[in-house]
Amino acid sequence: MNFPVIVTVTLREGIADPEGATIERALPALGFTGVTHVRAGKSFRMSIDAPDEASALEKATALAERLLSNPVIENASARLGATTPGGVE
Amino acid sequence: MNFPVIVTVTLREGIADPEGATIERALPALGFTGVTHVRAGKSFRMSIDAPDEASALEKATALAERLLSNPVIENASARLGATTPGGVE
Repeated sequence: MNFPVIVTVTLREGIADPEGATIERALPALGFTGVTHVRAGKSFRMSIDAPDEASALEKATALAERLLSNPVIENASARLGATTPGGVE
Repeated sequence: MNFPVIVTVTLREGIADPEGATIERALPALGFTGVTHVRAGKSFRMSIDAPDEASALEKATALAERLLSNPVIENASARLGATTPGGVE
């Protein structure tokens, strides 16, 4: 069975995030005030063939840690997503 | 009041995603089979000062569409996250 999975990769706390800092600095000039702690990360959607939800999430966590993230500076987490006809949404 | 918000930016359906395709092609060689429809996207975490959850989400959606995504090829969505001492997790 195919399960839709979303993997999110975020920088660990304390790791400098120039992209997030630049976004945060640009916001007031565009009229958005009161936005703080902006952190940029990555998000991957995929469809995983597995016998049940638990094994799909286990496979997603393993591949997120081995392939999609750098464990020295990043955290990876996997969760189930909603299915759409074209894949994962 | 500060609300933790997560903005996810994904490529619209039909838009080519070379990063996702490359990941999908690399997976079998690393021992991960049965993973399909891999799509890469971006994820932004932030803290938004707003009177209530609805206005925080509205502000996040507006800034996601104006600043964080290219509406021609990308979809942006905002949802509330969980709060952690260091910001948004």
